[in-house]
Amino acid sequence: MMNTDDLKYPGSRRIYVNGTLHPSVKVAMREVVLEDSLFPDGTKERNEPVRVYDVSGPWGDESFSGDVEKGLPKLREPWIAERGDVEVYDGLTGKALRGKGGKPVTQRHYARQGIITPEMEYVAIRENLGREQAFKAVYDRFPSEKSRPQEAQEVLDYLGTGMGRPSDLEKEPGFSTRSLTQRARLDYQHVGESWKGGRMPAFFTPEFVREEIASGRALIPANINHPECEPMIIGRNFLVKINANIGNSALGSSIEEEVEKLRWGLHWGADTVMDLSTGKNIHRTREWILRNSPAPIGTVPIYQSLEKVGGMVEHLSWEIFRDTLIEQAEQGVDYVTVHAALLQRFVPHTARRMTGIVSRGGSIMAKWSMIHGRENFLYDHWDEICELLAAYDVGISIGDGLRPGSVADANDFSQLAELEIQGDLTKRAWDRGVQIMNEGPGHVPLHLIRENMSKQLEWCFEAPFYTLGPLVSDIAPGYDHITGAVGGAIIAQEGCAMLCYVTRKEHLGLPDREDVREGVVTYKLAAHAADIAKGHPGAQVRDNALSKARFEFRWEDQFNLSLDPHRARAFHDLTLPHAGAKKAHFCSMCGPNFCAMKLTQEVREAERNANDA
Amino acid sequence: MMNTDDLKYPGSRRIYVNGTLHPSVKVAMREVVLEDSLFPDGTKERNEPVRVYDVSGPWGDESFSGDVEKGLPKLREPWIAERGDVEVYDGLTGKALRGKGGKPVTQRHYARQGIITPEMEYVAIRENLGREQAFKAVYDRFPSEKSRPQEAQEVLDYLGTGMGRPSDLEKEPGFSTRSLTQRARLDYQHVGESWKGGRMPAFFTPEFVREEIASGRALIPANINHPECEPMIIGRNFLVKINANIGNSALGSSIEEEVEKLRWGLHWGADTVMDLSTGKNIHRTREWILRNSPAPIGTVPIYQSLEKVGGMVEHLSWEIFRDTLIEQAEQGVDYVTVHAALLQRFVPHTARRMTGIVSRGGSIMAKWSMIHGRENFLYDHWDEICELLAAYDVGISIGDGLRPGSVADANDFSQLAELEIQGDLTKRAWDRGVQIMNEGPGHVPLHLIRENMSKQLEWCFEAPFYTLGPLVSDIAPGYDHITGAVGGAIIAQEGCAMLCYVTRKEHLGLPDREDVREGVVTYKLAAHAADIAKGHPGAQVRDNALSKARFEFRWEDQFNLSLDPHRARAFHDLTLPHAGAKKAHFCSMCGPNFCAMKLTQEVREAERNANDA
Repeated sequence: MMNTDDLKYPGSRRIYVNGTLHPSVKVAMREVVLEDSLFPDGTKERNEPVRVYDVSGPWGDESFSGDVEKGLPKLREPWIAERGDVEVYDGLTGKALRGKGGKPVTQRHYARQGIITPEMEYVAIRENLGREQAFKAVYDRFPSEKSRPQEAQEVLDYLGTGMGRPSDLEKEPGFSTRSLTQRARLDYQHVGESWKGGRMPAFFTPEFVREEIASGRALIPANINHPECEPMIIGRNFLVKINANIGNSALGSSIEEEVEKLRWGLHWGADTVMDLSTGKNIHRTREWILRNSPAPIGTVPIYQSLEKVGGMVEHLSWEIFRDTLIEQAEQGVDYVTVHAALLQRFVPHTARRMTGIVSRGGSIMAKWSMIHGRENFLYDHWDEICELLAAYDVGISIGDGLRPGSVADANDFSQLAELEIQGDLTKRAWDRGVQIMNEGPGHVPLHLIRENMSKQLEWCFEAPFYTLGPLVSDIAPGYDHITGAVGGAIIAQEGCAMLCYVTRKEHLGLPDREDVREGVVTYKLAAHAADIAKGHPGAQVRDNALSKARFEFRWEDQFNLSLDPHRARAFHDLTLPHAGAKKAHFCSMCGPNFCAMKLTQEVREAERNANDA
Repeated sequence: MMNTDDLKYPGSRRIYVNGTLHPSVKVAMREVVLEDSLFPDGTKERNEPVRVYDVSGPWGDESFSGDVEKGLPKLREPWIAERGDVEVYDGLTGKALRGKGGKPVTQRHYARQGIITPEMEYVAIRENLGREQAFKAVYDRFPSEKSRPQEAQEVLDYLGTGMGRPSDLEKEPGFSTRSLTQRARLDYQHVGESWKGGRMPAFFTPEFVREEIASGRALIPANINHPECEPMIIGRNFLVKINANIGNSALGSSIEEEVEKLRWGLHWGADTVMDLSTGKNIHRTREWILRNSPAPIGTVPIYQSLEKVGGMVEHLSWEIFRDTLIEQAEQGVDYVTVHAALLQRFVPHTARRMTGIVSRGGSIMAKWSMIHGRENFLYDHWDEICELLAAYDVGISIGDGLRPGSVADANDFSQLAELEIQGDLTKRAWDRGVQIMNEGPGHVPLHLIRENMSKQLEWCFEAPFYTLGPLVSDIAPGYDHITGAVGGAIIAQEGCAMLCYVTRKEHLGLPDREDVREGVVTYKLAAHAADIAKGHPGAQVRDNALSKARFEFRWEDQFNLSLDPHRARAFHDLTLPHAGAKKAHFCSMCGPNFCAMKLTQEVREAERNANDA
């Protein structure tokens, strides 16, 4: 059973930010409430609450009294209805919505017509985090309109340019601007580094969101049959997202466990969840997950197709796959992985590899091609797949069935040949109004990661890249969440839009609750590091607030601002369990005499006194 | 109590490789013995054992019967004696060795005279890992001398150059050379990327080692009073090393626990260990550690100095520090951190920071300067420090007392100003024959890591860089081993020579056994990823062997080749505990019907049959 106490963030409250274009838009956020700063002279300073991205949906709202049996409220139902372009029909397993006459009802379709949907406004507000609020704090401190932008500009100008040697700067009166930068300010942020045409705006507007979707650089996976879904965006010029997988493989886990894992994964911050079930009850498991998920749900429909033919690859067919796609689209799946770029002629090349084909979907399609001596039927029916899915706004994640499964196989012919085809298929899908992303590797050594990202940007026209890792070494089973987070942080910094998490059980077994928690938090950390590096506006606010709390020995705030407050607190309490220790002006690492922070506060105090004198 | 079963690597045996120039050199390595490959047609193929770097010293040799009370055999005693340049004298706490007349006896001193010491030959053999052996396997397969280098050259040429689009290559007969690369070979390795003058040789010779030490690009920390120490090298053109810290802080742990932690850290792969004790019994704790450590031991002598004055920073003096240095040099400490580059005039700048000064040593020296209104006495007595330490071959790690303690403070004036002084001090120390490295940050966002490495290479003349992290975000307390491993992998790839580990308790509490294990393995993983990226010859052999074992479902070999075989096996057994599962040709993640590796083996078999026909 789930302990509901585990699903609360201490010191936090749920807030909602309203839309302007669409007043029915109410964006859920979590606000971490902070203690006052206490200075040695007895004065206090108020610390503004910090707003953080929140994917837990109604489950994260204490006033929500729903339960798993009933499912979540249908947030998007009125938005979908108001557009007037859908019809209800009797689907394969019940009533479903689709675009009237099978026409596209995708966010891409609207964006290309210049329409800003409620979904687009929702993600614009969501992406800004608490930026309006952070700005307000600066404005309050610098009330003059003239001086305010000047000041901000100065910091930016300075940081954007190089600097000489410190010893040269010391010769200048007043030293350099770098020395003058007041880094102790909560709104201080390093200028990011944009990579090959990345364009991170200072502020996310609904129009910016629309442009990014229209260009194909981003997608909002949101099936019209999944009205419970809170819109989120995947694209290189937004916050880096992470995906967590769940799924009852043939060898373990029950439906109840899967819904529990969904909520657990969302609690720690998974932005989307893929249901990779391969056992019995696939349909019913998915139904429970969809009705209870405020996050987009992705699947790999070839798995269910294979179940339908009793696991016999040779009996797979386009018709079986198509019916599975329709069934899942009617149910509300938000995006599907389709391994359509794995062409028959690439398969022989994998025989030279260290680890051949390691993608499940890839190996299924390769075997099918081999048995029948025919081209991959997903490739042959690509246009039909796109037209079908556009009528539900199911996004497509073009699979990388030939991703390298070992460092040795990284960036080889098979992998890059498939990537090039992913690009061709992307263009064709866009022409049919479908929202697209591309899946990527895999096992890739550190210095070969950049080639992956560069070629994907070029060959796939900046369609969002969605990678599994990359894992930068093969020798750390049991620690592959870390091997993958290292590569994930690097590729995300260079433009990868979403990282699929890897748990520490990767290559070894099925993840349990603790593995999911550790995996999701690890990938949040990697994604966040990339957000700072890319210069996502406001990304650094939380780091600054946490570091300020750390410096001021506000232990509770330090815990509450962290990605995993429960673990931070538990680790602290293992060494210093008594309540008083959380008020102490030192910690267990150095003890009272060696506390650097304590000593440096004395330095700061002396400087203050010297300046006042 | 330590469970000695925990300190064995399954499927492994200790071997020794003999020196040529110095026959008394016997380099310890661990050899992982592998099972045969079994093919579907019933044939078998022998898999050569894989040699891995082993830092456990005599403790890792099953035939060693010593105990903690007696300490380790004095491996280097004859080498030191044979040089004929040391004298025994009555030191502060017992008999000790030093250079005759206080003259330098450093590896740098010998290297500059063209002398190849046994220590240098030891590290040359050690750095090659099992490369002679791997080469031999290729030679055996390609017996003709003419065709052999050609073949190797072809792979290198191909990998070193760019390639066109796969679709263009498909038009060429036989496709590209990339498609022809046989990656399934165990000796296959990606060409590395050298950064700003890195020069990774194809083979490590004793002469190469000598050159690197003479130039200052590398050091062998090996005090003449620590003859138990097995030589190892720290430098950008060698394997990336990692350091683990131990130490009884004021608030916890006993002497016995510290020696246990030493062995535990070495077991998992720490290349050096820093004893950061600050409590009582510092001298005695260190004695136990030194007499039982086959790895270099580092310290921060200002900590013991401060203990000597009862924790009152104002009572610190050059004389107290000097006596502490001598005491530690006589005892056998191999390298010391000295915060001599933190100048008095830099201190006021830290008042503008988010987190001020976070280095313990840095905050002590800053406070001392502030109280006395005088320059840092470590800076003022630098030449004397160097001359003193050269007579014992104690290496100096020039501390970064102003390293950033938060992402906000990264690469600011204070930090870079100190780095520039580190460079000045490096030059002066080299002139006095001392072996040097420079300490580096700290908290640094992903995109600002490169500036750290570039400036250090330039300003400190390629002296080895030794960093703590860098941590790429502040918001993950409880996961900071990962935040630091991400930054560590990146900076190591660009030339950082040694990474100081960070445990998941960082910022929160004192690490326990499991934290040390997790921390060391995580940093080994980061260092290894960088070794592959830098193109260290032979670094990829272990990845290849593990991936081949994975592909062939040799589960035991997969476990035994991993950095943490115990965890890999335990994780596997959580899902599939029965012994038969370790022979199964599928695993718990996908189950038998969806096993990609199983399917791809069928593809490979079909290709083989097609080619034979």
